[in-house]
Amino acid sequence: MSDRNIRIESVDRRAVEDQEVEIVERKGIGHPDSLCDGIAESVSRALSNLYLDRVGEVLHYNTDETQLAAGNASPAFGGGEVVEPIHVLIVGRATRQYEADDGTSYTLPVDSVALSAARDYLAETVPELDFGTDVVVDVRLGEGSGDLQTVFGEDGAAVPMANDTSFGVGHAPLTETERIVLEAEEYLNGPYADDHPELGPDVKIMGKREGDRIDLTVAAAMIDSYLADMAAYRDAVANVREAVTDLAESYTDRAVSVEVNTADDYDEGSIYLTTTGTSAEQGDDGSVGRGNRSNGLITPNRPMSMEATSGKNPVNHIGKIYNLLSTRIAETVVDEVDGIRDLRVRLLSQIGRPIDQPHVADAFVVTDDGVDLTDIESDIQTIVDRELAAVTDVTRDVIEGDLRTF
Amino acid sequence: MSDRNIRIESVDRRAVEDQEVEIVERKGIGHPDSLCDGIAESVSRALSNLYLDRVGEVLHYNTDETQLAAGNASPAFGGGEVVEPIHVLIVGRATRQYEADDGTSYTLPVDSVALSAARDYLAETVPELDFGTDVVVDVRLGEGSGDLQTVFGEDGAAVPMANDTSFGVGHAPLTETERIVLEAEEYLNGPYADDHPELGPDVKIMGKREGDRIDLTVAAAMIDSYLADMAAYRDAVANVREAVTDLAESYTDRAVSVEVNTADDYDEGSIYLTTTGTSAEQGDDGSVGRGNRSNGLITPNRPMSMEATSGKNPVNHIGKIYNLLSTRIAETVVDEVDGIRDLRVRLLSQIGRPIDQPHVADAFVVTDDGVDLTDIESDIQTIVDRELAAVTDVTRDVIEGDLRTF
Amino acid sequence: MSDRNIRIESVDRRAVEDQEVEIVERKGIGHPDSLCDGIAESVSRALSNLYLDRVGEVLHYNTDETQLAAGNASPAFGGGEVVEPIHVLIVGRATRQYEADDGTSYTLPVDSVALSAARDYLAETVPELDFGTDVVVDVRLGEGSGDLQTVFGEDGAAVPMANDTSFGVGHAPLTETERIVLEAEEYLNGPYADDHPELGPDVKIMGKREGDRIDLTVAAAMIDSYLADMAAYRDAVANVREAVTDLAESYTDRAVSVEVNTADDYDEGSIYLTTTGTSAEQGDDGSVGRGNRSNGLITPNRPMSMEATSGKNPVNHIGKIYNLLSTRIAETVVDEVDGIRDLRVRLLSQIGRPIDQPHVADAFVVTDDGVDLTDIESDIQTIVDRELAAVTDVTRDVIEGDLRTF
Amino acid sequence: MSDRNIRIESVDRRAVEDQEVEIVERKGIGHPDSLCDGIAESVSRALSNLYLDRVGEVLHYNTDETQLAAGNASPAFGGGEVVEPIHVLIVGRATRQYEADDGTSYTLPVDSVALSAARDYLAETVPELDFGTDVVVDVRLGEGSGDLQTVFGEDGAAVPMANDTSFGVGHAPLTETERIVLEAEEYLNGPYADDHPELGPDVKIMGKREGDRIDLTVAAAMIDSYLADMAAYRDAVANVREAVTDLAESYTDRAVSVEVNTADDYDEGSIYLTTTGTSAEQGDDGSVGRGNRSNGLITPNRPMSMEATSGKNPVNHIGKIYNLLSTRIAETVVDEVDGIRDLRVRLLSQIGRPIDQPHVADAFVVTDDGVDLTDIESDIQTIVDRELAAVTDVTRDVIEGDLRTF
Repeated sequence: MSDRNIRIESVDRRAVEDQEVEIVERKGIGHPDSLCDGIAESVSRALSNLYLDRVGEVLHYNTDETQLAAGNASPAFGGGEVVEPIHVLIVGRATRQYEADDGTSYTLPVDSVALSAARDYLAETVPELDFGTDVVVDVRLGEGSGDLQTVFGEDGAAVPMANDTSFGVGHAPLTETERIVLEAEEYLNGPYADDHPELGPDVKIMGKREGDRIDLTVAAAMIDSYLADMAAYRDAVANVREAVTDLAESYTDRAVSVEVNTADDYDEGSIYLTTTGTSAEQGDDGSVGRGNRSNGLITPNRPMSMEATSGKNPVNHIGKIYNLLSTRIAETVVDEVDGIRDLRVRLLSQIGRPIDQPHVADAFVVTDDGVDLTDIESDIQTIVDRELAAVTDVTRDVIEGDLRTF
Repeated sequence: MSDRNIRIESVDRRAVEDQEVEIVERKGIGHPDSLCDGIAESVSRALSNLYLDRVGEVLHYNTDETQLAAGNASPAFGGGEVVEPIHVLIVGRATRQYEADDGTSYTLPVDSVALSAARDYLAETVPELDFGTDVVVDVRLGEGSGDLQTVFGEDGAAVPMANDTSFGVGHAPLTETERIVLEAEEYLNGPYADDHPELGPDVKIMGKREGDRIDLTVAAAMIDSYLADMAAYRDAVANVREAVTDLAESYTDRAVSVEVNTADDYDEGSIYLTTTGTSAEQGDDGSVGRGNRSNGLITPNRPMSMEATSGKNPVNHIGKIYNLLSTRIAETVVDEVDGIRDLRVRLLSQIGRPIDQPHVADAFVVTDDGVDLTDIESDIQTIVDRELAAVTDVTRDVIEGDLRTF
Repeated sequence: MSDRNIRIESVDRRAVEDQEVEIVERKGIGHPDSLCDGIAESVSRALSNLYLDRVGEVLHYNTDETQLAAGNASPAFGGGEVVEPIHVLIVGRATRQYEADDGTSYTLPVDSVALSAARDYLAETVPELDFGTDVVVDVRLGEGSGDLQTVFGEDGAAVPMANDTSFGVGHAPLTETERIVLEAEEYLNGPYADDHPELGPDVKIMGKREGDRIDLTVAAAMIDSYLADMAAYRDAVANVREAVTDLAESYTDRAVSVEVNTADDYDEGSIYLTTTGTSAEQGDDGSVGRGNRSNGLITPNRPMSMEATSGKNPVNHIGKIYNLLSTRIAETVVDEVDGIRDLRVRLLSQIGRPIDQPHVADAFVVTDDGVDLTDIESDIQTIVDRELAAVTDVTRDVIEGDLRTF
Repeated sequence: MSDRNIRIESVDRRAVEDQEVEIVERKGIGHPDSLCDGIAESVSRALSNLYLDRVGEVLHYNTDETQLAAGNASPAFGGGEVVEPIHVLIVGRATRQYEADDGTSYTLPVDSVALSAARDYLAETVPELDFGTDVVVDVRLGEGSGDLQTVFGEDGAAVPMANDTSFGVGHAPLTETERIVLEAEEYLNGPYADDHPELGPDVKIMGKREGDRIDLTVAAAMIDSYLADMAAYRDAVANVREAVTDLAESYTDRAVSVEVNTADDYDEGSIYLTTTGTSAEQGDDGSVGRGNRSNGLITPNRPMSMEATSGKNPVNHIGKIYNLLSTRIAETVVDEVDGIRDLRVRLLSQIGRPIDQPHVADAFVVTDDGVDLTDIESDIQTIVDRELAAVTDVTRDVIEGDLRTF
């Protein structure tokens, strides 16, 4: 066992699953805030890979700011058009010029790489959006320091030092409501959308549980070119409602009620019809860190980090790493140890010490009825210790795109 | 008593004040994220007042997005210079053309008013920043719908309907650590700065309490033109440390430790010296809603809303109103009712119902030792009900600038 | 014969062909200034066609401003890369909202159409330029007045009234030097480039004739991905030199000398190598109206109009129409009438009168030896009159892309 | 006598003064194109002085591109307002980092200096324009090469080498029409405006002479805050008309007719009323090099250079230097030598030779009746030679702001 400062405590509150009122939200991948998160993280991954490919190490950068200013559109059954483009501005800093210890000089095309990453991400995420006319993407990357940031990427790389006081928090397992909200969005934007091209990626789901009743409110941007008329639109809405209801009922025995596009007014023709599948086309601005936390959800019942995870440098940004790692630890513990009803893991960094040696790592556990914390405490301790030792895996997984950040 | 759905519950967790580890942070008014919050809220207030003055009612607008892209500076003892300007982009939408029911047509100078508000806010908050050369401010306001949004501003105004499902959360009283962090920043940026012009407004304070020990970490941007040399800088740092220590000790009997500009390296000359007093001059970007919550703090120990409060329309944005109102209710209850050790108030809106009739208003109470919730429950209920009835006061106070949003 | 105010005069100067020193320049289609001209004119054509297709008439717009801010590139034999993108900003005004007399309301997607036209133009003209990463295009079109500008496009359309005092000037025939400069660029950017992909579209040719000696100076941007090494580059330069020499000698009996990329310094490796084929990738900015006049040349020996032709509304912008029409008249006259050595046609508008009724139309003629102006005066008069009557053909040809503007 | 290649020739055309039709135009200092010229040249001067002050030499820069995108305004008698700001974008390149031979490193605040110069120029030229709300100025300066460009500024400075083939052309004396157009604008924007604050700086004057009749068409932007009503406006227009008429008649015996704001329609209330005194507030865009040539006029009767003079580096940009120098030579010759009715001086550079050694310097002379060129040829030759020898005076005078460029 290491000498890491790990504390396992029983927490004297009810598990979120057992609280009277629970609220959960997920902004789907086509929501303006999620688009900004996704672009920022794509740009970050692209820069990490650029530096690794060319220099062999990740240099200083930070791209956790992306501003989306909404456009204007004229949707119409059968196919409308974007009238004024969406503007996306990628903001941050990156190292353009670098001289290695061996004297080799590098000029890194950070702007072009950032723009390319954003273009590819948008093409994949909102395919109806015509790049360059429906959306204009620009970039303003200040000059990074050019200091060698890390030896990540080399064999025998050391663990970086924490350069800030920051903390991360993760939870597991998901409550039923959380799981339904998360999986419903992923289902709608996955298999369902494959079969139903009229559903745009801007799907927002709010879940509210009062006691044993779960209300799901879905806002789903429909795409005009796949819908001939109002009847088709109403069918599309009904189909989403049915799909989400079916999915939810497969996860819970609680009463489930689903509402889709509740603000629609068919008489006035005021419906959630779009040309591109995102509300960014008409009035909804977005930016990084305003939406989902790094577990994919907004969970006001749980302590959350304010830290924006997307776009930050995964090698040395301690807030990003600890948010992702604490979530991973919580999930792993719950996966491997039976008897846990609710677990919160919190990591607090200490400036100047290796990031695998947090100032505090504490786990707050609500056990299942009949389970005593002392029975599982040592198992938990071992897993936390093991995952802390593997902290640089988080960096690697982020760079390879294997870890969700929003 | 009204028929509002108000629930008062005892909560079975420890008060934050009694938890083992507590973390609190405040980004001072000169921090890049706070600058964006402040600009967004100034622009919002200016637009509200523009509409009230000209049209007599607040029209549709939303300005809760402001992106700050950092500049580059060359600070130097005795006075350095900004080399590349900070760029601020105000994003949102506002109503430019409006035709009243009586046929009067209005053209509203929303861009000029927004720019003017931002300029004034920056001049007041970061006086060393030369507008137009050290910082360039631009605006991109899409066209609002032009619909009449509300009759706010007229006598006998009705309470608006909620147009979204959203929630707000407020807490009271502040813990010792929260109070110290909040007041230390306000003191430094208030009376202290008046006497110490070398202290810039970009002061960030992180408070960590473990048991009965409070560690305060202060990052304070010093202004070069007021500092002749390194000795003067070291004095300035020492003065801040002393001032914060004195202030903290006046609020708590716990052990207090204060560190200021811990990342400084005097030998390498790497210190927190700036030309303008904000890190936005050199590499630190900012945006709205990434910093303090509406009570002025970031409090990972407490449930928080992700909602950005600053810049939103205070007449009809239910998320903004409920965050401010729940905080106000919590503070008022604690002010008027004895025996409360910790109180969380949560408001959940219901689409289509008046905003003074939330779907749920719940108060979670931790009582002082020896106090039973039943003794004070009715008092709390009355205050919550009264404050909900006065919900439009929040709108008014926001427009008049009397309510903090960050 | 009409009552148009047409004057035919003999001019007592030497024909440009007979002057001692003559200077002629052409900026090729890939030159930054020409790119701006080409984008502006493409946008103009696209807007004209948008209005004609949707509304049946051309509405108010003007897009004669496009600013190109150069990028940075790292060219390298075998293929380099653009490091910082070129920025293109389309500036002007256009009508977005229009209500026809019959009450039909139109929303015109002018931004999207402008961006699309620019993207297509760049793809065709500088195919090596990757849209969105090598070049970022944005648009800032103010609101036009929305007034019905013209009935152009309907049968029986009237001739518009001149709304400004402006003048146009045209010349014919081209001198040998002019013809060589013009045709050399067209040949290089046409058949030659088809066979020599290493030649980029940014070809600038300066011709200087002193007496009977013609010196041609060619600056030709070579594309790195088609050139393996310095030897290949030198071959490419030599090939251009030979091609231009051959072409020139086919047009003239005068002594011809051709220099290509004279600023190259092979020893220092300082050569005109690019990644995309345009100097806009590295430091050369551009804007509309700074390059070729509407006959495709810059001719300091001849009076020229300062008016930028590209991007202007071809229905009602009198400066554009008169520059194009005077050139067409001069060319037609020289084509149909023998004995003219040099002809300058000038048209001066009169506010408030139909544009086919210029205030003055004067033709200055230098006749061939042995030809007397009186012999051909009447023929010239007839042609000028006929072409003035057909003034709206210019508008039509511009909209259809059949008339050069730069 | 030097061995410079100077040719003096008699020209066999009529002097412009004696041609039948003459057209002259001047865009006043408040015209959008002139504003861009003025900003570009101010920025250039400021950068030259920055480099001289800090480094002792002028480093590489070029700022001859400035794009103005017009705003929107609501002028009204007694005082209107700007509704959407004018946007000005300064484009070019400049050296930010420089290492001198002695190893001293310089960081030059080129962006801030450029923005400051633009702000000051606008404040002086269009005082009614509120910086930051009525007009937003931004800058995009690419990185210059950082090469030492010249030793200008040191004692014993050598004459720079020409780095391009370019030419300049100058004329003297001004014709009556030219002089009237030029001086009328200067009078209106000088002493007249001091007494008549209602006259804005955006004054455009077109002069047309047919035989002995001169028609002047003045477009004068009036400022609303100084005009109470339509009667005041009509008085203001009448006053301008009277002032220009008086001034013109003091320079010529020809018949003079003056029209002011001819497009006004009093019945429809369509007049040239502005809030700020420039048409840039409402729909008129501008850019560098689209207006006056370096003698302050647009003169279609005379050969002109297409070269934009404003904003170019005055140390090494041969096109700028030769345009200014040829004008200076022409004026000096006419000033010192009697008997010249019309003079055109043309300078053609030769790459790689000192700029005081042009490839050709030719002077085309039309003498007064009774004067033979041979009588004055030698005097002209001497002056041309002397002024060429003093070519670096042009650079100095430009940097000190003593030479007009538009």
